[in-house]
Amino acid sequence: MVYASRGDGGSLFGKGGAWRHPMRDERLRKLARLLVEYSIGAREGEQVLLSGGAAAGPLIREVYTSLLEAGAIPFVHASLPGLQERFFEHARELHYRKTPPMVRALYERADAFVNILAPTNTRALAGVDPEKQQALSRRDKELSDMVLKRDRWVLTLFPTDALAQESEMGLEEYEDFVFAAMALEEEDPVAFWREKSRRQERLKERLERAREIRITGPETDLTLSVEGRTFVNSAGTHNMPCGEVFTGPVEDSANGRIYFGVPVAVAGREVSGVRLRFENGRVVEASAEKGEEYLRSMLDADEGARYLGELGIGTNYHIPRPTRNILFDEKLGGTVHLALGRSYEATGGRNSSSIHWDLICDLRGGGEIRADGELVQKDGRFVGLELG
Amino acid sequence: MVYASRGDGGSLFGKGGAWRHPMRDERLRKLARLLVEYSIGAREGEQVLLSGGAAAGPLIREVYTSLLEAGAIPFVHASLPGLQERFFEHARELHYRKTPPMVRALYERADAFVNILAPTNTRALAGVDPEKQQALSRRDKELSDMVLKRDRWVLTLFPTDALAQESEMGLEEYEDFVFAAMALEEEDPVAFWREKSRRQERLKERLERAREIRITGPETDLTLSVEGRTFVNSAGTHNMPCGEVFTGPVEDSANGRIYFGVPVAVAGREVSGVRLRFENGRVVEASAEKGEEYLRSMLDADEGARYLGELGIGTNYHIPRPTRNILFDEKLGGTVHLALGRSYEATGGRNSSSIHWDLICDLRGGGEIRADGELVQKDGRFVGLELG
Repeated sequence: MVYASRGDGGSLFGKGGAWRHPMRDERLRKLARLLVEYSIGAREGEQVLLSGGAAAGPLIREVYTSLLEAGAIPFVHASLPGLQERFFEHARELHYRKTPPMVRALYERADAFVNILAPTNTRALAGVDPEKQQALSRRDKELSDMVLKRDRWVLTLFPTDALAQESEMGLEEYEDFVFAAMALEEEDPVAFWREKSRRQERLKERLERAREIRITGPETDLTLSVEGRTFVNSAGTHNMPCGEVFTGPVEDSANGRIYFGVPVAVAGREVSGVRLRFENGRVVEASAEKGEEYLRSMLDADEGARYLGELGIGTNYHIPRPTRNILFDEKLGGTVHLALGRSYEATGGRNSSSIHWDLICDLRGGGEIRADGELVQKDGRFVGLELG
Repeated sequence: MVYASRGDGGSLFGKGGAWRHPMRDERLRKLARLLVEYSIGAREGEQVLLSGGAAAGPLIREVYTSLLEAGAIPFVHASLPGLQERFFEHARELHYRKTPPMVRALYERADAFVNILAPTNTRALAGVDPEKQQALSRRDKELSDMVLKRDRWVLTLFPTDALAQESEMGLEEYEDFVFAAMALEEEDPVAFWREKSRRQERLKERLERAREIRITGPETDLTLSVEGRTFVNSAGTHNMPCGEVFTGPVEDSANGRIYFGVPVAVAGREVSGVRLRFENGRVVEASAEKGEEYLRSMLDADEGARYLGELGIGTNYHIPRPTRNILFDEKLGGTVHLALGRSYEATGGRNSSSIHWDLICDLRGGGEIRADGELVQKDGRFVGLELG
C-alpha cells in the first residue's frame, strides 16, 4: 500500500466542491479554440506563428493542439526569461541596426499570428535605458507593420505569478479574474463574443454619426474630432480579453486636458497619474506622479509620439477593476483610453510613430462622454445602449 | 531586522567549503565561451541558430551573451516540454508531408548551429509509435543535411533532473559529472580540447594506416574494412563532451557478431543487451534483452538501416561510467561504438539512411581492438598511445 505519493499535487476538489481536473484546465482548451477558430480563423495548410513566454506552456500546448487539429502548420516561438535583459546589457550597435533576418523570415511566411504574454517578472526591464528600448522598437517596426497588414493576429495573456503579483492577487484568484474577463466561464465563449460584437455595433454606429467627442471628468475636459474616421468594433478578433470600440482621432484636433488616473506598467516600470494638455492635437504640457522621466522620453521618441493615434472606449464589464495591465485595463467597462503614437490604419488614422502607448481614464467615479453634445456614457454606464 | 527571507536559496558553501556563486555557475560561462569561440567559431555578423530545451535557460542565456559579445546575430529557438507528445497525438497526415517552411527558413539562413539537449522527461515518447517518429525524422532529413553540410554545428547538454534520474544520480552530482566530462573544471577548457585533438591525431594516423579493424570481447568478434576511409578526429567541435575518433566502415565489409552491453535510452525508451550478427555488411540476426521490438522497427526503417554508418572509438577518460546517454557513453574511454544507418560524409562513408543509431560495446572488462592484427587497445586502455 502506498499513501504518501499520490502525486495529485493537492485536493481534487476546488471551490464549491466541484470536481476540477487536477492538471488540465478546461478553460485553457476553450481559450485555445476561441483563439484558433474565432480570433484568427486558422485554415488547413496555413502557417501560424505561435509566440509566447515559456511560462505560458500549458496554453501554448492547447493552442498548438487546436492548430494541428485545424490542419494548420504551427511554429512555436517561445521566449525565455532573462534573454531581453541580456540583450540590452550586451548587444552592440550592430544589433540595433536591423531585424535579424531569421526573425524576419518567420514573419514573412506566417499567414496568422498568436501571441501570448506570460511574464515571470513584470519589472524585469525597469533598469533599462528607455532609449535602447525605443531603438529596438524602431528596429522591429517592420515586423509590427507586417502583422498589422496581414490583419490576422491575436494577443492574449496567460496568468503567471508575476502578473498576479502586479495585480495584487493570489495566482488562482488571478486565474479566475483573467478567465472571467475572457468569458471562458460561459458555455460557449465564441457565441458570447459574437453577441458582444453585435451589441458593440450599435455603439460604433452612434459614434460614427458624430463629428466631435468630448470627455469630461475629474481634471478632464478634452474634445476631439472623429469626423470621417471609422470606429472599429473589437470583440475578440485581435485581443483576448476584448471589448472596445476605437478610432484614430483627427490628428490636429485634440484640445483640452485629461487626467489618466489608472496606473500602467509599461516596459518594466510603473507610470501613474499622467496629466496631459493638448493644443491642436499636440501634447504641450505633460506630467506624471510616478515615471515622469519615462513619460518625457516617450513623448520625445519622435514627432508622432506627441499626437494621438487612438481613442478607445472600454465595454467589458466582466473586468471589475484595473490591474496595471493595458490588455485588460483599456477594455474595462466605464473607462476611456487614448494612445500616444501610431494609429491603426483601419480607423482612417494617419499618425505615424514608433510608439503606441495607451493611457486610461476611469470615468466610473464621475464623468461623461458626449458625441456631438449628446450623452453616450455617464459615470461609466452607457446611456441607451445595452453592453454589459 | 529580517531573518527568514535571505533569498539565497540554500547554503553559500558547497563541497569542501569553497564559496560558490549561489545563482550563476561559472562553468556555464566557460561552456558558453567554449561553444561559441572554439566549437563554432562565431564571427561578427553571422547568424547563429541557438536551439535548446527551455529547461536549458541558464546555459542558453550564457551562449546568447557570448554570441552577442562576438557580434553574431543569435536566434533562440527554445522547445517546450510536452509539445512533441502533442504533435504525435494530434498531427495529421499533412503534417508529416514536409518540413514546415518557417523551420526550413531558419535553417537556410543560419551560418552556424548550437543545439542544447535538456529534456525534462527522458521517457516522454515511450508510448509513441516508432513509425511516426521515423516518419518525422524522414520529413526533416533535409534539415540535418543542411546542418551537416554547413559543418559548423555543435550539440551539447544541460543537466536536468530528468537526465540525472536517467543516470541514477542527484542533480548536483550529475552536474559535476557532466561538467567534468566537458573539462570545465580545467582553467582553460579551450586549451584542454586543443591538446586532446593533438593527442587524438596520433590515434587517427595509426588507424588510417590499417585496412582492417577487428574488435573482440565477450560474445564479440567482428571485422570491418576501413580501407581508403578517413578517420575523423573529434575533439569538441561538434559534440560537447567529446573525445572520439570515428570513420564510416566500408559498407559491405562487416562480418561477425557483436554484443552491445551498454544500455541506451533512445526516442523515449530503453534498449539494452543488443546482439547483432553481420554478413557482408548487412545485419542478418538481431536481438535485444530489452526493446527488441524497437530494434526491429529501426532495422526496418529503410535498406540503409541494416548497414553500418559509423565505427567510433571513445577517448574520454573523464567519463567514469555509462549513463544511458549516447552523447556521453560513446565518448567513454574504453568503449567502441557502431552506428546503424547514415554515415558522415567527411569519413568517406557512403551509407544512406534516415536513421543514425549508435550502439556501444564496453571493452574495459576484457576486450581488444586490433588494426591489421596490431593491438591498438586492450581492456579499455590504448597501447602505446597517451590519450587520458
